[in-house]
Amino acid sequence: MKDKISIVGAGLVGSLLAVILKKKGFEVQVFEKRKDPRKSEVAEGRSINLALSRRGILPLKMAGVFETIEPYLIPMKGRMMHNEVGELTFQPYGKEGQFINSVSRAQLNELLIENAEKAGVEVHFDHKCTDVDFEDNRLQFENGESIKCELIVGTDGAFSAIRKKLELTDRFNFSQHYIEHGYKELCIEPTDGEFLMEPNYLHIWPRGNFMLIALPNNDKTFTCTLFFPFEGSPSFQELNSKEEVNAFFDQYFSDAKALIPDLAEQFFNNPTSSLVTTKCEPWHKSRTILLGDAAHAIVPFYGQGMNSGFEDVRLFVEMAEEMNWEWEKVLPKYSSFRKKDADAISELALHNFIEMRDHVGDPDFLKRKKLEAQIQEQYPSEWVPLYSMVTFSDLPYSEALRLGKIQKKVMDEFLDQTAEIDFSAIIDRFNTLKQVD
Amino acid sequence: MKDKISIVGAGLVGSLLAVILKKKGFEVQVFEKRKDPRKSEVAEGRSINLALSRRGILPLKMAGVFETIEPYLIPMKGRMMHNEVGELTFQPYGKEGQFINSVSRAQLNELLIENAEKAGVEVHFDHKCTDVDFEDNRLQFENGESIKCELIVGTDGAFSAIRKKLELTDRFNFSQHYIEHGYKELCIEPTDGEFLMEPNYLHIWPRGNFMLIALPNNDKTFTCTLFFPFEGSPSFQELNSKEEVNAFFDQYFSDAKALIPDLAEQFFNNPTSSLVTTKCEPWHKSRTILLGDAAHAIVPFYGQGMNSGFEDVRLFVEMAEEMNWEWEKVLPKYSSFRKKDADAISELALHNFIEMRDHVGDPDFLKRKKLEAQIQEQYPSEWVPLYSMVTFSDLPYSEALRLGKIQKKVMDEFLDQTAEIDFSAIIDRFNTLKQVD
Repeated sequence: MKDKISIVGAGLVGSLLAVILKKKGFEVQVFEKRKDPRKSEVAEGRSINLALSRRGILPLKMAGVFETIEPYLIPMKGRMMHNEVGELTFQPYGKEGQFINSVSRAQLNELLIENAEKAGVEVHFDHKCTDVDFEDNRLQFENGESIKCELIVGTDGAFSAIRKKLELTDRFNFSQHYIEHGYKELCIEPTDGEFLMEPNYLHIWPRGNFMLIALPNNDKTFTCTLFFPFEGSPSFQELNSKEEVNAFFDQYFSDAKALIPDLAEQFFNNPTSSLVTTKCEPWHKSRTILLGDAAHAIVPFYGQGMNSGFEDVRLFVEMAEEMNWEWEKVLPKYSSFRKKDADAISELALHNFIEMRDHVGDPDFLKRKKLEAQIQEQYPSEWVPLYSMVTFSDLPYSEALRLGKIQKKVMDEFLDQTAEIDFSAIIDRFNTLKQVD
Repeated sequence: MKDKISIVGAGLVGSLLAVILKKKGFEVQVFEKRKDPRKSEVAEGRSINLALSRRGILPLKMAGVFETIEPYLIPMKGRMMHNEVGELTFQPYGKEGQFINSVSRAQLNELLIENAEKAGVEVHFDHKCTDVDFEDNRLQFENGESIKCELIVGTDGAFSAIRKKLELTDRFNFSQHYIEHGYKELCIEPTDGEFLMEPNYLHIWPRGNFMLIALPNNDKTFTCTLFFPFEGSPSFQELNSKEEVNAFFDQYFSDAKALIPDLAEQFFNNPTSSLVTTKCEPWHKSRTILLGDAAHAIVPFYGQGMNSGFEDVRLFVEMAEEMNWEWEKVLPKYSSFRKKDADAISELALHNFIEMRDHVGDPDFLKRKKLEAQIQEQYPSEWVPLYSMVTFSDLPYSEALRLGKIQKKVMDEFLDQTAEIDFSAIIDRFNTLKQVD
């Protein structure tokens, strides 16, 4: 148990993996191309808040670091929807007592890096990886250093340098696909040191083809994110003056606008960023493996980017331990075992954008939500809604996706029934389709 | 009309484009990372023969170079199928007098480079492009040279350096996907200076999940290509000794094996190569554009890789001329106009592998082929088979694909009819679906 492990990327997934592998007895080094975030200013306006849920919490507990993270979390019990005239509607995420947690990416990353160093991991900043020798298991860095080790883990995100090297190898499948929408962050500052909206919710302004969301931060601010088409009407392309921005927000988000006095300034100061889905296969080559966004970057609309990356870490370590850390056997097995789940959450995340921006305020959607709540009340263990399977369970994503499709089919069959609903018939139908599917 | 144009890649598409643009009056330079093929040995065993057809011939005529190419072409009138016991069946490609042309990639490339130089194009070999500045319209080469120009064209193939730079820019969609099959080339040498099989056919040994094909060369050899799975049973992975190779060929390709005395030696001397489909969008950025494989690499099974690349050249130049060579307008228009056709031939090429290896010897397929021949005989102008639309016409690929799908649907409807076939009813049905689809 003295293998030398090199992790490329000291983001969330890399730092968490480093803590766990170090505690398992390995010699762990982390290489990060950026400067130490604890010593440098954080770039503003590019930090979609994260929603930590069960799949992310389990690996944090496995690493023994959850108690150092917990004080920084803000529970969000459900969606608080804002309509055009500022009226609010609440939709709980799950059962009483179930919630997701707003957390700042920057804060969480610093906490994980501190935990890694405390565990004895060497974290090398300003180390840009420029080449990988997959045969010799060697990393090359811009500063001339070269590291040979027993295992290389690429946790360097959606634009992973390690993956770019894999892309050049024969028979490596890869895709990067940008959606038509970009995003821009805006900040709601506190007044008299207090939140300007109810903090324990994820606020949403669903507007059909676009939406605004807001998540609470520890400093009593809200980070708002506008998800909006790059082109078309309306779109980022159309908003070129302060007047146009103000008029657009007056029309669609007047209650939010009232809370952001310097809206137009923020709009033009903050960048407009794009949203990409990446897929690749296989995730490994000899003794190099990709985890997290480096293997499967997804859009943020199911709040599962970080959670799926953390779950990668847990499943990878559990499998490796079970297989006595024989990397040559672990890597192909993990890679082929986990791929279907990454594909599933990728699909779910793209689809949830449509649900959030479009259906959340839609009568048909609300009718199905109501039916589902009734089914669940009567059969809480037989029928777990898709959102709960993804967010509050650790069922494989691919199984959650499969069951969710069956649930939708069953609900569609019973939704327009005029007779009194026979809930046991719904459960029977669900159980039948579950088996034969 | 004195714009300076830099073409990266002196392959088939790049050299042809250079000839045409030079003759239109531009200052054209071509940069190629490899050595001059006329002065170096050609790598053996990696040169799938090409089948030149109408879409490739039109641009060669447009460039005024077809007469220099024509003497090197060998007409192939149809498929000559070989079954397990060596029996032959002939399927013509089109009507009497229609054929495709076997041509060596290396020969054709040298002819086109010679034509380009003769027209006054500067072709720079040993020039590996290492960077592109899309804003400044500047190419950087490994030898330190740097070139600024009015238009950059990337014709540097499936692993295009120009495209790799575009992949790093925001909102550039890209995918590379390898199929499960690889290929290996084998050579049938002539005896007493004569071809060992009938030369004017594309020979196929369809065997379900794999196949062997053979195309005639000018030196009376045939280039055979085995398309075969990398893994599984049978597969390349399973053939590890000369005995295994010989036994495999005895079982599946005994008549071909009898013509290759040194079969097993060739099998282990020649490389096993992979087959990739790449897609990207957009094909341009400011004044840089991708053409040919650099924009859309496809598998070789429809014989349209080169033909579609040459057609790119014709359509691009025609559109540019029509738009008065205003590159900033031409590039986005061409890119969005041609994309659907590249996607269509990509799909058709993947599908034709299944047809060639699997259906070509299949009774159902033959039944449909027979019905189609009858329809075509009665209604030659109303019903053009899909293969002919792709190979012998210049209808957009996307339209050929659309019509082909309708034809299949119509034939499926009439195929199992026991009554005498009413061909006018077939044509009526086809014409109806063509309109409403």
